[in-house]
Amino acid sequence: MQSSGKLHSAQFLQHQLQEVITLLEKQQLEKSLVQRGPATNYELVETMLHKQHQTRLQEKFALLHPADIASILESLPLDQRKTVWDAIHTLHDGQVLLEVSDAVRQTLISGMEPEELATVAGKLDADEIADLAADIPKRAMLKILRSLNSKERKHLNAILAYQENQVGALMDFGMITIRDDLNLKAIIAYIRKLGKLPSHTDKLFVVDQLDRVQGILPLQRLLTHPPSRYVADVMVTDFVKFQVDQSTIEAARAFERYDLITAPVVDNEGKLQGRLCVDSILDFIREQSDEELLIQAGVGEEEDLFSSVWKSAKNRWGWLLINVGTAFASTRIIGLFEDIILQLVTLASLMPIIAAMGGNSGNQTSMLIIRSLALGQVTPANVHRLIKKELTLAVLNGLFIGLVIGLLSMLLYQDIALSVVMTMAMFINLLVAVVVGLGIPLLRHKYGKDPAVGTSIILTAITDSMGFFIFLGLASLFLIK
Amino acid sequence: MQSSGKLHSAQFLQHQLQEVITLLEKQQLEKSLVQRGPATNYELVETMLHKQHQTRLQEKFALLHPADIASILESLPLDQRKTVWDAIHTLHDGQVLLEVSDAVRQTLISGMEPEELATVAGKLDADEIADLAADIPKRAMLKILRSLNSKERKHLNAILAYQENQVGALMDFGMITIRDDLNLKAIIAYIRKLGKLPSHTDKLFVVDQLDRVQGILPLQRLLTHPPSRYVADVMVTDFVKFQVDQSTIEAARAFERYDLITAPVVDNEGKLQGRLCVDSILDFIREQSDEELLIQAGVGEEEDLFSSVWKSAKNRWGWLLINVGTAFASTRIIGLFEDIILQLVTLASLMPIIAAMGGNSGNQTSMLIIRSLALGQVTPANVHRLIKKELTLAVLNGLFIGLVIGLLSMLLYQDIALSVVMTMAMFINLLVAVVVGLGIPLLRHKYGKDPAVGTSIILTAITDSMGFFIFLGLASLFLIK
Repeated sequence: MQSSGKLHSAQFLQHQLQEVITLLEKQQLEKSLVQRGPATNYELVETMLHKQHQTRLQEKFALLHPADIASILESLPLDQRKTVWDAIHTLHDGQVLLEVSDAVRQTLISGMEPEELATVAGKLDADEIADLAADIPKRAMLKILRSLNSKERKHLNAILAYQENQVGALMDFGMITIRDDLNLKAIIAYIRKLGKLPSHTDKLFVVDQLDRVQGILPLQRLLTHPPSRYVADVMVTDFVKFQVDQSTIEAARAFERYDLITAPVVDNEGKLQGRLCVDSILDFIREQSDEELLIQAGVGEEEDLFSSVWKSAKNRWGWLLINVGTAFASTRIIGLFEDIILQLVTLASLMPIIAAMGGNSGNQTSMLIIRSLALGQVTPANVHRLIKKELTLAVLNGLFIGLVIGLLSMLLYQDIALSVVMTMAMFINLLVAVVVGLGIPLLRHKYGKDPAVGTSIILTAITDSMGFFIFLGLASLFLIK
Repeated sequence: MQSSGKLHSAQFLQHQLQEVITLLEKQQLEKSLVQRGPATNYELVETMLHKQHQTRLQEKFALLHPADIASILESLPLDQRKTVWDAIHTLHDGQVLLEVSDAVRQTLISGMEPEELATVAGKLDADEIADLAADIPKRAMLKILRSLNSKERKHLNAILAYQENQVGALMDFGMITIRDDLNLKAIIAYIRKLGKLPSHTDKLFVVDQLDRVQGILPLQRLLTHPPSRYVADVMVTDFVKFQVDQSTIEAARAFERYDLITAPVVDNEGKLQGRLCVDSILDFIREQSDEELLIQAGVGEEEDLFSSVWKSAKNRWGWLLINVGTAFASTRIIGLFEDIILQLVTLASLMPIIAAMGGNSGNQTSMLIIRSLALGQVTPANVHRLIKKELTLAVLNGLFIGLVIGLLSMLLYQDIALSVVMTMAMFINLLVAVVVGLGIPLLRHKYGKDPAVGTSIILTAITDSMGFFIFLGLASLFLIK
């Protein structure tokens, strides 16, 4: 869908948001004035006012692109969001529901009657309904299913049969199929008769009688070759296609690598099942990278900026509780050395440094390995050389950072033995950090697990415990008489 | 460019990589056998062997897509990468250089003579040369500039005039412009005469005599409207366009929001300067999200999996040294309380818990705010409600996590006073963490800085120092007689 030139600027959106909030506050004020006013015809006045408010909001939002409405809804606090959504949910045929984030969609849907929801969502395409399916209550879903024709229902069921990380779950059905025994003139006439091409159509799919994909006909070729030529002579037979059960991550990489706009999705027999489109891939990549960042920061799932405090709290407690556990566990090591600390209390000030630096350095290693694994660049053929390189690097890092830390503690405490212990502990803990930062992702990957999940928790737990143990252990060997 | 259906699978790439490595090792073996053999005609035999090796590598790689070759090169250790690149750098007209990551490109270019490089890169389009420009030595760049015609040179200079974060730096020139006083039949005839459309062409740009963009003509409309209609009647006048000096991040969001394939780029007077294309946007989003992850982990810039140990070390030291600084600074606080620790050594075991949990919780808050700021969802209109929500959440978190920690220490030490101090310290430090995790990104954003950079370092430094200070301070008030 195309939109006015100014629509895409961030300022425009902020300006719209400001206007909406001003409007809402004005309406709130009007409402409270009526409530405080004389009680005659009270209900009538309030109903009229409510209608007026709804109309004003509808007028304001009717001109906006669904994606922009979604963005404004996401930026509104819960109560204002609900007021706006009540007024405008029939606009744009449910497209707004598609554009909002998962967390915000739940807040919108939770306030709707099953009938309303079925009316709104029923206007969407099968692949779009599939995107919403997880958030739609069962009763509304049944209503929607009943309103679909048999082809749409088949499409919807086809998508719902696949898991979120499979290509089938991301496909749509906006494809034009043609046979290879027609000439280009006939194809152009066919398109003209259709009157409309699905969005993002950059190629037509050439299929045989069994619906198996034989080739693709880019619009480019359709437009540049003589109309008398036959599809079979002009089509491209060397093209990228995807299997329904293939991993979405792999498909996304292929879109980036081969600069695709659309590509056919086929089943095991090569039969055309649907189409993958770059706009779904773009959304997928964005969601995935957002998710990675949030996982790193320990926020469970995507959080709505204004989801209820209670919901946000529960979303963050999982990670915090795990951290309470690992923090208590690793500091138990310190308990073992309490008499050492009593003899040299400076150790208490210095030990967190050794622990923290181990975590930082291990994180650097593990993040690079996790990314290289995701890019498919780590293979049995080169993993030994990679390990060798990272170990060499750890020795170099350990020497350098160890010496810097030794020097700094020398400046602070003028105690050579203490400084030597600091340097040695730092050196050993950085080696431990690299072995762990390398080992956890590689092992998880080897056994088919996602190498990113949990790596940083386990890593920090180990580098903390080992940092305390190595430092206090060395201190008890060399510093305490 | 289209490629064979199997090309995009990860297994296929891993298999190719394995084959290349086997081939290289075999060649290495042959070479060493010749060197150890009888010395007659030694040089002749070695030259012949070298030629043979080169040919074999060229045959192997000629069939692969440039993006796949790039991926294999990135997975090879430095010496093997150099051997392969020596043999194949003339293949695919420099496209491989475009596809490899920045770090790997530098290793490839550093081994090439200026003449070679100019020959290879000279075959690329102006916008592609611009992508490489930062990595090409001055002498080779001058050679390349001399080999371009005046239009290409103008294009190249146009792109180089913009900064990396501006739309102008990402544009290309693969656009077809038309006038609005022609009919569609004439346009179709024009395209047929051109014989080829630039890749990703989904629309033609309609310009006036001064090159100002008046509208766009999607190929879809060209194909579905009667050939006798005029461009002026069929074109879309409500379309997304970008300014050359606009932020790339904003443009990427617009591509996602409005599902664009291509869009015109104009200057301040509305004159067409170039085109933005979804494949560049896809690469941009991927690079940006990779960068964000690496910044979070404290890896300076993108690192080649097999860049030299020395280079990797320098890349990681910056962050580690900053951390040494903040770690020393925050543990100085502990030094102030050494006599307290001597009186109750258990405090040494417990204080890292308070510090670490503050950092974790603050990170959760700051990451959500940073992401919402990037999405443009935090505005002056809603920031107060957002702050109120996060503070309420912090109180809730503080009570819950504080009580959990108090309980755990009660179980460990059976000391009520100590447990109460733990709970209070945890509660206060979580409040500090949220204020800081909220404050730093918001303030940085307010003053036009990137809210993501450095937030986690400053945050951890503050939550560590404050954690130690609050806990040991409360202990000295309530636990020490």
